[in-house]
Amino acid sequence: MLMHSYEGVHQQETKMAKNEVKLIGYWGSPAALRVEWALKLKGVEYEYIDEDLPNKSPFLLQCNPVYKKLPVLVHDGKPLAESLVIIEYIDETWSSENPILPQDPYERAMARFWAKFAEDKCVPTTVGVFSKLGEEQEKCTKEARENLKTLETALKGRKFFGGETIGFVDIAVGWLGYWIRIVEEIVGINLLEEETMPLLSAWVQDFLDVALVKERLPPRDKLLQLNKGFREQMIASST
Amino acid sequence: MLMHSYEGVHQQETKMAKNEVKLIGYWGSPAALRVEWALKLKGVEYEYIDEDLPNKSPFLLQCNPVYKKLPVLVHDGKPLAESLVIIEYIDETWSSENPILPQDPYERAMARFWAKFAEDKCVPTTVGVFSKLGEEQEKCTKEARENLKTLETALKGRKFFGGETIGFVDIAVGWLGYWIRIVEEIVGINLLEEETMPLLSAWVQDFLDVALVKERLPPRDKLLQLNKGFREQMIASST
Repeated sequence: MLMHSYEGVHQQETKMAKNEVKLIGYWGSPAALRVEWALKLKGVEYEYIDEDLPNKSPFLLQCNPVYKKLPVLVHDGKPLAESLVIIEYIDETWSSENPILPQDPYERAMARFWAKFAEDKCVPTTVGVFSKLGEEQEKCTKEARENLKTLETALKGRKFFGGETIGFVDIAVGWLGYWIRIVEEIVGINLLEEETMPLLSAWVQDFLDVALVKERLPPRDKLLQLNKGFREQMIASST
Repeated sequence: MLMHSYEGVHQQETKMAKNEVKLIGYWGSPAALRVEWALKLKGVEYEYIDEDLPNKSPFLLQCNPVYKKLPVLVHDGKPLAESLVIIEYIDETWSSENPILPQDPYERAMARFWAKFAEDKCVPTTVGVFSKLGEEQEKCTKEARENLKTLETALKGRKFFGGETIGFVDIAVGWLGYWIRIVEEIVGINLLEEETMPLLSAWVQDFLDVALVKERLPPRDKLLQLNKGFREQMIASST
């Protein structure tokens, strides 16, 4: 029993049918969305459980006692948290279908490097543009644009970060393209400019046009309303 | 040529002999230290280049234009940054010797989960204990202890996080055990208490006793002096 070794995190193995897959998500969560894209890419059948936030279910708390957050993938009764960790797990477990990470070790490392760069640099500065005001917002806007331009360099000569088809970086970062357009509408700043970042702008459109990506995108209007609410809360709590 | 695809980061391939390995590090850098442990574990021959910080060398800036920071591994002329990404690359490239990550996908995912937990939770709160004063320091101390206790749960029934031998989590987190004792001496707080965290305390000692780990540890007194200087700078810049 694998569970035994890490029982601190995953104390309770859930009784499930062999190979059964459940995903605990939330319709407005980018991290849950990217796990869904990975599952769809692999053609994995799964049960999707939408959490009623902020009222977290006992099942979520049981499956992720360390962070108490979603998404959580439960496979064969064994729960797993952290979306990028889950995506690598999906790639290794259903390894015969549509590879998510490249096969070559150096290319794999570069994919991990860029996914981490987006997570550590592009996301926080974009959130800053969304949640700050005045000079702080201007500073974040400048930094976010610089980071996005750096990210764009990895697209040179490629349609997707994964090459001709979507891969790890696309799945990890793709939601940001959808969110950025919503952030831009809410705050009235053109963050990802087509003139200065033509490759990244085209990639956003190409990625969102991929059938399996498009079919799981949350409705734009609903997401806009949700994020307007988030912005009001963030500004209220910082003033 | 792999370099082509990501030339934004790695514009200049360095001319090197086939399979030549260089590591750009700094004697007091935990991130460089863990890459060295991984190379030693695999028995990889490498040239170690110690940077003269804060005067970064042109070679470092050429190899890591995105972050301009060390460590950087250069293998066959191809540079790679981000220590945990480098360690996975080392494991995949020299795959026949001493596996660093487990073979089973779920165990691999759990190793990545815990390495990330330590990085995201244990490290920042420990740095807080080291760099803050008064109430802020007390808050960080409480949080750091809670995070370390959570990390300890992954050691239940195991000598090392990797089992009977050291693995990914040990290599990723091991430096923290060495640094924590130095932090404790500098700030006069017993952070990792033997009574409340017996497994983690024993692990620190066991890990630091592993021959290949011990032989690359920076001298304690020199590291103490370096970190005393860091603390003074951090406190000065926050007041």
